[in-house]
Amino acid sequence: MVIKIVYINPVGTSAFDKPMKEFLDNYRSPDTDITVVSLEKGPWHLEYYSYDALVIPDVLKVIREFEGRGYDAAIIGCFYDPGLHEAREVSDMVITAPGESSMHIASTLGDRFSIIVGRRKWIPLMEQNVVKYGFRDKLVSFEAVELGVWDFHKDVEETKRRLIRAAKNAVDKGAEVLILGCTVLFGFFKDLEKEVGVPVVDPIIASLKYAEFLVELKRRMGWTWSRIGMYEKPPREEIEKWRLPL
Amino acid sequence: MVIKIVYINPVGTSAFDKPMKEFLDNYRSPDTDITVVSLEKGPWHLEYYSYDALVIPDVLKVIREFEGRGYDAAIIGCFYDPGLHEAREVSDMVITAPGESSMHIASTLGDRFSIIVGRRKWIPLMEQNVVKYGFRDKLVSFEAVELGVWDFHKDVEETKRRLIRAAKNAVDKGAEVLILGCTVLFGFFKDLEKEVGVPVVDPIIASLKYAEFLVELKRRMGWTWSRIGMYEKPPREEIEKWRLPL
Repeated sequence: MVIKIVYINPVGTSAFDKPMKEFLDNYRSPDTDITVVSLEKGPWHLEYYSYDALVIPDVLKVIREFEGRGYDAAIIGCFYDPGLHEAREVSDMVITAPGESSMHIASTLGDRFSIIVGRRKWIPLMEQNVVKYGFRDKLVSFEAVELGVWDFHKDVEETKRRLIRAAKNAVDKGAEVLILGCTVLFGFFKDLEKEVGVPVVDPIIASLKYAEFLVELKRRMGWTWSRIGMYEKPPREEIEKWRLPL
Repeated sequence: MVIKIVYINPVGTSAFDKPMKEFLDNYRSPDTDITVVSLEKGPWHLEYYSYDALVIPDVLKVIREFEGRGYDAAIIGCFYDPGLHEAREVSDMVITAPGESSMHIASTLGDRFSIIVGRRKWIPLMEQNVVKYGFRDKLVSFEAVELGVWDFHKDVEETKRRLIRAAKNAVDKGAEVLILGCTVLFGFFKDLEKEVGVPVVDPIIASLKYAEFLVELKRRMGWTWSRIGMYEKPPREEIEKWRLPL
């Protein structure tokens, strides 16, 4: 039975849509159909927290649209996981994001993990997510390679060199598994695994496979968001009265 | 492509093998083939820590045997997860267990979970596992119904009444998702969900679906146990020299 998944690049450029779709198609299960979209407007990367906040309303809008079209799952394609909990609050679809998905996988494959990021700027928000998801005790370190989102594919060899150095630092500190902490680092995981000898979790694949897993749990057992507490839905009357786009 | 999974009841009775096989077959993916086995000797339940310790060598033996027969995964069917990390240390198969699998699922479906167990006796070891797996911040409470493993199916209505009471206590304390903390509580989750209105994770289904998920990660991306740190393998020479059954 087909699983329809929309992967959302929460940025105002479609530059990554095609390469990410091609990459994800290599790793999807045969029953999965992936659509990759981006936003109509907005920042071209989310390195600043204010940019991240700006895109969430548009991400929610895209999710509502694809839910209306009968999709099974949406993936919010940024390692900050922007709007992950807000989306689960209003949507009955499966929603995943790279940060949460990668941490579940990494903490199963070994005792503790490190996350390799572009810039130091990104670390506090991602560390807050580690704590929010409950993985505080599983985190060894963040390692910054001091490259921005748009630098990663400029000089791929230099990016690899920096990733390898960061990966080795993390392993020296005790990391048993590594996570690439930016969706635009897609595709680097295999080279890095060969160099460092530990599993390296590619965050966009992680979010895809976790989405497939959660769709399976929902379809076969009916397990989905608890509506008591964090994912309690806002009342439909309020949403309509206040004309909220939710 | 077929996924061959062995579900091990780590007790010296085959009483649960048939009903668990039938139950699991309702929830497996179409490609999964499940074999359920138990041990040739040993305690008939694992309510005591000393019993739990006794069965681990035999669980490892069964795992080695099924790995030799080309199986993809083994599930260690007790909520204490006996031998989970020891098995991953020596086996290249996917290994899952109900405790770890249930906690990953529960902490995704809501913010925090409670675990419903039979006897208070069980709680300290299970709580140590919660901490070991990194889910300390996700745990609301343990709730004991004061029934032993062999009592659950004696008076099913009384068991349900006690489970419902425990489930409501947990939700009152803030649990958004519930986990049944004993494999012999298989099959109670649906009634409980109807009564309490939150997702209730059946531990044996959780361990099955998590095994299928990890097999998919291994086959498609090659992600499996990190061999640096916790899951470093013991040297083959030592094992042979000391004639260890590993």
